[in-house]
Amino acid sequence: MLFEVTILGSSSATPTSTRYPSAQLVNLLGRFFLFDCGEGTQIQLRKLSFKIQKIQFICISHLHGDHYLGLIGLLSTMSLLNRKKEVTIFAPKGIAKILDLHFKLSYSELSFKLNIIPLQGSSMKRIFEDESCELFSFGLKHRIPCWGFKLKEKKRPRGLIKSAIEKYNIPFHLLKSIKSGSDYITPDKEVIKNQIITMDSSIPRSYAYCSDTIYFDGIIEHVFEVDMLYHEATFHSNLSKRARSTFHSTSLDAAMVAKKANVKSLLLGHFSSRYKDLNILLNEAKTIFPNVNLAIEGSKWKINKK
Amino acid sequence: MLFEVTILGSSSATPTSTRYPSAQLVNLLGRFFLFDCGEGTQIQLRKLSFKIQKIQFICISHLHGDHYLGLIGLLSTMSLLNRKKEVTIFAPKGIAKILDLHFKLSYSELSFKLNIIPLQGSSMKRIFEDESCELFSFGLKHRIPCWGFKLKEKKRPRGLIKSAIEKYNIPFHLLKSIKSGSDYITPDKEVIKNQIITMDSSIPRSYAYCSDTIYFDGIIEHVFEVDMLYHEATFHSNLSKRARSTFHSTSLDAAMVAKKANVKSLLLGHFSSRYKDLNILLNEAKTIFPNVNLAIEGSKWKINKK
Repeated sequence: MLFEVTILGSSSATPTSTRYPSAQLVNLLGRFFLFDCGEGTQIQLRKLSFKIQKIQFICISHLHGDHYLGLIGLLSTMSLLNRKKEVTIFAPKGIAKILDLHFKLSYSELSFKLNIIPLQGSSMKRIFEDESCELFSFGLKHRIPCWGFKLKEKKRPRGLIKSAIEKYNIPFHLLKSIKSGSDYITPDKEVIKNQIITMDSSIPRSYAYCSDTIYFDGIIEHVFEVDMLYHEATFHSNLSKRARSTFHSTSLDAAMVAKKANVKSLLLGHFSSRYKDLNILLNEAKTIFPNVNLAIEGSKWKINKK
Repeated sequence: MLFEVTILGSSSATPTSTRYPSAQLVNLLGRFFLFDCGEGTQIQLRKLSFKIQKIQFICISHLHGDHYLGLIGLLSTMSLLNRKKEVTIFAPKGIAKILDLHFKLSYSELSFKLNIIPLQGSSMKRIFEDESCELFSFGLKHRIPCWGFKLKEKKRPRGLIKSAIEKYNIPFHLLKSIKSGSDYITPDKEVIKNQIITMDSSIPRSYAYCSDTIYFDGIIEHVFEVDMLYHEATFHSNLSKRARSTFHSTSLDAAMVAKKANVKSLLLGHFSSRYKDLNILLNEAKTIFPNVNLAIEGSKWKINKK
């Protein structure tokens, strides 16, 4: 039942000697999503001894280099290791041209199929779902077209109460419909209400990723009441003018979004290389939103069941 | 009088947790050349606390990703740090298309001028010179068009013998022509031969870089008698079949080139990620060429005056 975010890169624009450009690995029930893929992502994954072939979905927020320049290297390595399983990329439409040009000029082909889904529009859109989760994109406001992502668990079927199933001696072939909400009718025509033999599943969890954006009110509804919000905090608010002119956020902006959207916890990232000690950003955010952490390289953040 | 090679990446194809893709920084008398620029090059330079704005020339051997995917990130960082000085790139002609597409799709412009010189032909060609050095390209044999590079000092003027200059009381304004080989004629019309008042300058040094290539006899003349030869050694000779089919070299091939070309020293690199302990490659090369070293990340190799 794991829902966990691993930070691979926390640096904005230019890397530092310890901070890499944006990238995060998200494990939702064994499905692995990569959110952005800055230069060095595959190296970070190697350092964590993570098997890159597990990655199935790659979400690229926008085409500034610090958010995608690790993508070609990652795909090439997957191919050199003879991957066969398809990879799905959700990204601005230009990504296909970039990949095509590289593979043409390097006279190489991938060993697996790429499924490229271009991101579109600014409203909340479901871009993927399976039986257990849903992935959404929504528009951010940056200097170039840029999208945020929200990953949500689906509500799971009700759980069986083992002792009740035994008590009423319910046959195995009926359990699926009972999990879906059916009552049980005994051989004596007694109706056993579903609530007596099942319990509600846990509340679905959610994670939102806002890579590069200026503060805007419209973002609140997109990330409303998520369990964990990653929000960029490139600058301290004493550089709010610079944040505005570059379409970035301050740590205070990020905390304000978290507060207004009533999220459970906040992760700050995309730090300007000017900050050697990131506590200046953390402490500022804490003044208005207490449950906040720094998205430092190698850190892992579990989203627990409620 | 420094001529020094710093290794930034030694890995072939895929990086490992400790080895980066190909990149080397070469300092020749304060001119900084980057030979290849694999993913993570700017991060490696940061770790070495090297000021990236010092780099003036970037040589890209070919367009396989492990040799150039760090280029866009490096140029972007130079620009974000507001570089004004031109950068010259020697690379296969496709590089211009790759850079154009990225900067178009990221809606960004560099703060400095890029001077892109496309590599051409397989013969030895001088592609750059100034008063102190010359840079040459020559064709390698790989799966895609690929070039090696040779960097040579120019012969410096003869040096003045200070004690002789004082003994004959030679006026300052004549020293330049004396350095160029003129004799000195005293006020009494006595001819002082140039050899008496000057000494020969040291023999020019040279470095050759052979990134990705299968063994071929034609390479010998290109790297003949260089002081230091970097030659790829992707495989041990027990995988020579694989080396041939992928157009790569074994450690024995690299040593054979060094021996036949009568070079002074050999650096091995571009190691397959299958080799955890690289001594298997080093020891094999030593069986036919003794003065050989491993181009490990962070290692520095001085080319001393002769």
